[in-house]
Amino acid sequence: MAMVDATEVDHLAAERAAAQFDVEEMKVAWAGSRHAVEIADRMARLVASDPVFRKDTRTMLSRKDLFKDTLRKAAHAWKRIVELRLTEEEANLLRLYVDQPGYVDLHWGMFVPAIKGQGTEEQQQKWLPLAYKFQIIGCYAQTELGHGSNVQGLETTAMFDPKTDEFVIHSPTLTSSKWWPGGLGKASTHAVVYARLITEGKDYGIHGFIVQLRSLEDHSPLPGVTLGDIGGKFGSGAYNSMDNGVLRFDHVRIPRDQMLMRLSQVTREGKYVHSNVPKQLLYGTMVFVRQSIVADASKALSRAVCIAVRYSAIRKQFGAQVGGPETQVLNYKTQQSRLFPLLASAYAFRFVGDWLKWLYTDVTQKLEAKDFSTLQEVHACTAGLKAVTTSATSDAIEECRKLCGGHGYLNSSGLPELFTVYVPACTYEGDNVVLLLQVAKILMKTVSQLTSGKPPVGTMAYMGNAQHLMQCRCAVSTGFFERSPDVVEAAVAHIQLLLLLMCTYGVRFIEKLQQDIPGHGVKEQLQNLCNVYALYLLHKHLGDFLVTGCITPKQGALASEQLGKLYAQVRPNAVALVDAFNYTDHYLGSALGRYDGNVYPALYEEAWKDPLNETVVPEGYHEYLRPLLKQQLKLSRL
Amino acid sequence: MAMVDATEVDHLAAERAAAQFDVEEMKVAWAGSRHAVEIADRMARLVASDPVFRKDTRTMLSRKDLFKDTLRKAAHAWKRIVELRLTEEEANLLRLYVDQPGYVDLHWGMFVPAIKGQGTEEQQQKWLPLAYKFQIIGCYAQTELGHGSNVQGLETTAMFDPKTDEFVIHSPTLTSSKWWPGGLGKASTHAVVYARLITEGKDYGIHGFIVQLRSLEDHSPLPGVTLGDIGGKFGSGAYNSMDNGVLRFDHVRIPRDQMLMRLSQVTREGKYVHSNVPKQLLYGTMVFVRQSIVADASKALSRAVCIAVRYSAIRKQFGAQVGGPETQVLNYKTQQSRLFPLLASAYAFRFVGDWLKWLYTDVTQKLEAKDFSTLQEVHACTAGLKAVTTSATSDAIEECRKLCGGHGYLNSSGLPELFTVYVPACTYEGDNVVLLLQVAKILMKTVSQLTSGKPPVGTMAYMGNAQHLMQCRCAVSTGFFERSPDVVEAAVAHIQLLLLLMCTYGVRFIEKLQQDIPGHGVKEQLQNLCNVYALYLLHKHLGDFLVTGCITPKQGALASEQLGKLYAQVRPNAVALVDAFNYTDHYLGSALGRYDGNVYPALYEEAWKDPLNETVVPEGYHEYLRPLLKQQLKLSRL
Ligand SMILES: Cc1cc2nc3c(=O)[nH]c(=O)nc-3n(C[C@H](O)[C@H](O)[C@H](O)COP(=O)(O)OP(=O)(O)OC[C@H]3O[C@@H](n4cnc5c(N)ncnc54)[C@H](O)[C@@H]3O)c2cc1C
Ligand SMILES: Cc1cc2nc3c(=O)[nH]c(=O)nc-3n(C[C@H](O)[C@H](O)[C@H](O)COP(=O)(O)OP(=O)(O)OC[C@H]3O[C@@H](n4cnc5c(N)ncnc54)[C@H](O)[C@@H]3O)c2cc1C
Repeated sequence: MAMVDATEVDHLAAERAAAQFDVEEMKVAWAGSRHAVEIADRMARLVASDPVFRKDTRTMLSRKDLFKDTLRKAAHAWKRIVELRLTEEEANLLRLYVDQPGYVDLHWGMFVPAIKGQGTEEQQQKWLPLAYKFQIIGCYAQTELGHGSNVQGLETTAMFDPKTDEFVIHSPTLTSSKWWPGGLGKASTHAVVYARLITEGKDYGIHGFIVQLRSLEDHSPLPGVTLGDIGGKFGSGAYNSMDNGVLRFDHVRIPRDQMLMRLSQVTREGKYVHSNVPKQLLYGTMVFVRQSIVADASKALSRAVCIAVRYSAIRKQFGAQVGGPETQVLNYKTQQSRLFPLLASAYAFRFVGDWLKWLYTDVTQKLEAKDFSTLQEVHACTAGLKAVTTSATSDAIEECRKLCGGHGYLNSSGLPELFTVYVPACTYEGDNVVLLLQVAKILMKTVSQLTSGKPPVGTMAYMGNAQHLMQCRCAVSTGFFERSPDVVEAAVAHIQLLLLLMCTYGVRFIEKLQQDIPGHGVKEQLQNLCNVYALYLLHKHLGDFLVTGCITPKQGALASEQLGKLYAQVRPNAVALVDAFNYTDHYLGSALGRYDGNVYPALYEEAWKDPLNETVVPEGYHEYLRPLLKQQLKLSRL
Repeated sequence: MAMVDATEVDHLAAERAAAQFDVEEMKVAWAGSRHAVEIADRMARLVASDPVFRKDTRTMLSRKDLFKDTLRKAAHAWKRIVELRLTEEEANLLRLYVDQPGYVDLHWGMFVPAIKGQGTEEQQQKWLPLAYKFQIIGCYAQTELGHGSNVQGLETTAMFDPKTDEFVIHSPTLTSSKWWPGGLGKASTHAVVYARLITEGKDYGIHGFIVQLRSLEDHSPLPGVTLGDIGGKFGSGAYNSMDNGVLRFDHVRIPRDQMLMRLSQVTREGKYVHSNVPKQLLYGTMVFVRQSIVADASKALSRAVCIAVRYSAIRKQFGAQVGGPETQVLNYKTQQSRLFPLLASAYAFRFVGDWLKWLYTDVTQKLEAKDFSTLQEVHACTAGLKAVTTSATSDAIEECRKLCGGHGYLNSSGLPELFTVYVPACTYEGDNVVLLLQVAKILMKTVSQLTSGKPPVGTMAYMGNAQHLMQCRCAVSTGFFERSPDVVEAAVAHIQLLLLLMCTYGVRFIEKLQQDIPGHGVKEQLQNLCNVYALYLLHKHLGDFLVTGCITPKQGALASEQLGKLYAQVRPNAVALVDAFNYTDHYLGSALGRYDGNVYPALYEEAWKDPLNETVVPEGYHEYLRPLLKQQLKLSRL
């Protein structure tokens, strides 16, 4: 895959030779299994070798061309999936490596799951086959111009008309315009639209409806439907391949049976009735979405870290003596102290992602058995992990970019696009601060119940052992609002503890399987990274540990010292530890992160692709530069 | 300026009415004087009312169109400057409000100062008039593909040829290609090129040379000169209006007198001789450049804060009760605890900028009197302030963007461009970590000399009072490398102390002028912001204060509590405090930051400008969507 041609030089060969562990086995540990390595590898090569999936000039495309390119890639990917009869697992990986956001993500990631989760058996039988074959393209239209976080505040109405047995979908105000749904602006033919259900004069709150938006004949918007794209977004390339859209309804009628009716229904007469399916069942979908967000975090973070580590091993700047050989910037302790905790975080997030996958299965089983006892704890833990890992990853990608000095600012480094395409993860699927406030509320509630004889469960069990918490007299109501910045910090701490446990769990997991892993050194490396991660968190939040008396200042100082020693142990393994991610050069999309380390010719070549280099003398010279230089600007004396 | 039309509604009127101080007087305090308010206002309106300076579709332009637009704006700005006979102060402000990076910045900001600082009287007389009239356009070509931070490692050579009395400028390797200089790629006719001076077989290290790059007749590169743009950079719009360039020399000859000869010369015979001008004199330019970087930090930060504060006052989400009126997100304590410290930082950086201006005058006078005693301390303080303020500002802009929820991710919020155009300030003019390491070295040296009877001066004087520092046995050499991450943290702390002192100084300054300031409440507000800034830093670096025993855990907790109370005092004044920056809607360039708060119609209108909205059915439908929907993809069965 990213292997170096026999005739070419591997500028990172010395680094690779110095590694103290078996990289191939680490690949297995990272991917989860030998099988996972194999199919990831196969799908990555499939994408990298296909010219349609090229993305090296993506950031130079105009919005229109970029969108067209996305449509092309999506169609081509689907064609390959069908031709090669790929499994779902393979197809997902193929899309991952195509690495370009588009309507397909929302179709599979939100539209289909919404119907699966909220539709009745009948509805599923009608709509899912259409969606599976792409006879319709769907999106998820919840957010409006005026309301995102507060879903209960949505203004779009779905008024039942018993005369015709239809719902009338309407946008009564400007702020009720649907705004943000991915795939809505240009590609989707259908949407699950969230609107206030009104029947018999009563507002029953927000419900989902399947609404056709465009003609299946010529793709033109149906009568009463206004559709458009909401405009350019952060970055070039990046998320601009997605047609996040605006949608307004002018009394659009849909049949009654397009209300998603698994939980509640409206009868022919207009009666609102609950089904006997408990609301909590919807919860499974949310856990599923959040586990995939955490998995994405480790992917994005590991890509950024891979680029920064390889480039830091190639980049030399300053030397022991002037004129002497220069030092690889990866040898500078400041570089290590900024980069290695991020490398450790990538591994930590990877293992917590696995654990969340397990949690999803566990919750699904419990829900099916109508056991809702762990729901709150699971909510706190998935919401919190979503918030903490996405924030940390966004910051980390930008830090990796800065670690590459000036060259990190070039699109050809791949890092600007990686950052801008990733960072909205802090906002969508729940604004991180809003999520942390929810976690904090659950924590406070748990603490307030500690003395009630109801011991906390699962990831909150440790709180039952914290004697001093028992003395806390905090109720969720009093002071919560005033002290919310502090409780948010507490929520973050809770989640970090969880991450640490999972990180250790990851190591234990490896240990357990040790007899099956012939590669040497893998466990030691993971142990080391786990320690780095733990001490890094301690160092970063030293104040909290000290203020609560959990550790002494002396212990704090010792921890920092120890951290330095751990970095020294990571150093010889750093390049191999990012090789273990097994990313192709195509997927990385970075002149700085190339597998062979041949950075400078790559940067130089990329530069000449810029459209500005099509002519030596720039357009505009004759109108705006020459008159200036020749002192011939036409001045109007005032 | 940004005032609301009489017929239009000011959605922020209630906020403005609630302010407890005189905004007009705060504008004076912010701008520095009544005169400063007046000309800033005049220049801002001049730009805002001129259609050539429109920038609302800037992020949608292709790279070529964006560059052409920049050339057009630069020529037009110059035309207006000449026509209106603007003073230098006015011209600088006009360029500031045009708000689009371009070759002009480097011409005035680096090329001209380099000649002024490093050229002899004769050289200045020859070159400066040409530059002043734009008969030549110049840039600053120091960085190479292989070397940025380590200037001594540059590889370009300038070999003296006594036969022809010329220097031969040459790029011996790929990594010696000049890479990054702004204005170089397409616009400049000349450059100050830094190269290794070689004469009589000896390498005398890096020196500056004035080199003509392009024909003044047709702008084509001169023989032996290869020129191009280095390609797209982070963000859309943003810094892509600048033609950062690549430059290679193939034995290009320049006359000997184009070496900048103020400090050292090469004689007709090829002898290298030092002049009697001390090297330290160059220092003034660096202080000047850094003071303007700090001033830019407060500008960028205040723009971001202005947008986030206004939008947070307009945005409502959730309510006390479901169905009841919703809460302005500015009322949430978490929002305040993220936003108000940034508001306070904007003011703090503003005042430290003023102080640096004073420092520049002071240093210039001292240098002229050949008093170099404070140079080291001044270096530590300007380098450190550059690093700390640019890092804090970059992070703060991104935080302001996140504080705007989903809408902050749209280009129409103005925040993505503000971030991407600003963030390279962390890298250029010295990578921040490299600068902080220099500060740390000076700090360590100062500490190691504490007992030597040589008391530290200026901003380091406080160290003479720190008894426990006296006991430190630290030498710059031992352990510096190993402990560099920690000493960098110490450097940051030193600079933050400085900022705090300056912030207090700002308040004292206002106090002193109190009799001249009729406006009520101005001093109280600044005092309040100063306290916010101080306690915020304490809270953020609590660990350092606790680990050193400077404060007790109890004091730490009290400080956090106090911070909450201060936020409550900022709240009613928040909108007025950002109004005091006196920015036009044009300069802010944000649908969210509009003066009148009429956010939603603005967002909606901006959306429709996207080229993707030119057609309802997108380009590519017939090729890539219809075949998919109609199940007519041409599959090749394998
Ligand atoms: C790239 C992208 C893709 C998206 N895709 C989709 C999609 O496919 N379908 C769809 O329906 N939506 C989509 N969205 C919308 C997304 O779900 C919302 O933007 C998100 O839920 C945040 O809501 P908001 O924008 O209303 O933020 P707001 O809630 O307005 O947040 C603004 C600020 O207020 C603060 N705040 C809000 N409430 C509180 C509170 N109670 N307490 C304290 N602070 C508070 C927030 O922390 C934030 O700082 C997308 C958004 C983006 C950016
Ligand atoms: C937008 C932009 C505009 C620019 N304009 C110009 C211009 O007009 N003219 C011009 O000549 N140049 C220009 N530059 C180049 C700029 O000056 C350099 O990028 C800058 O000096 C940083 O150097 P570098 O890129 O070599 O970073 P590097 O030094 O390669 O930094 C890479 C990493 O190594 C670390 N590092 C380096 N040395 C050390 C050390 N001794 N100890 C510890 N860590 C270290 C850094 O902290 C960083 O993390 C521009 C750059 C940008 C991004």
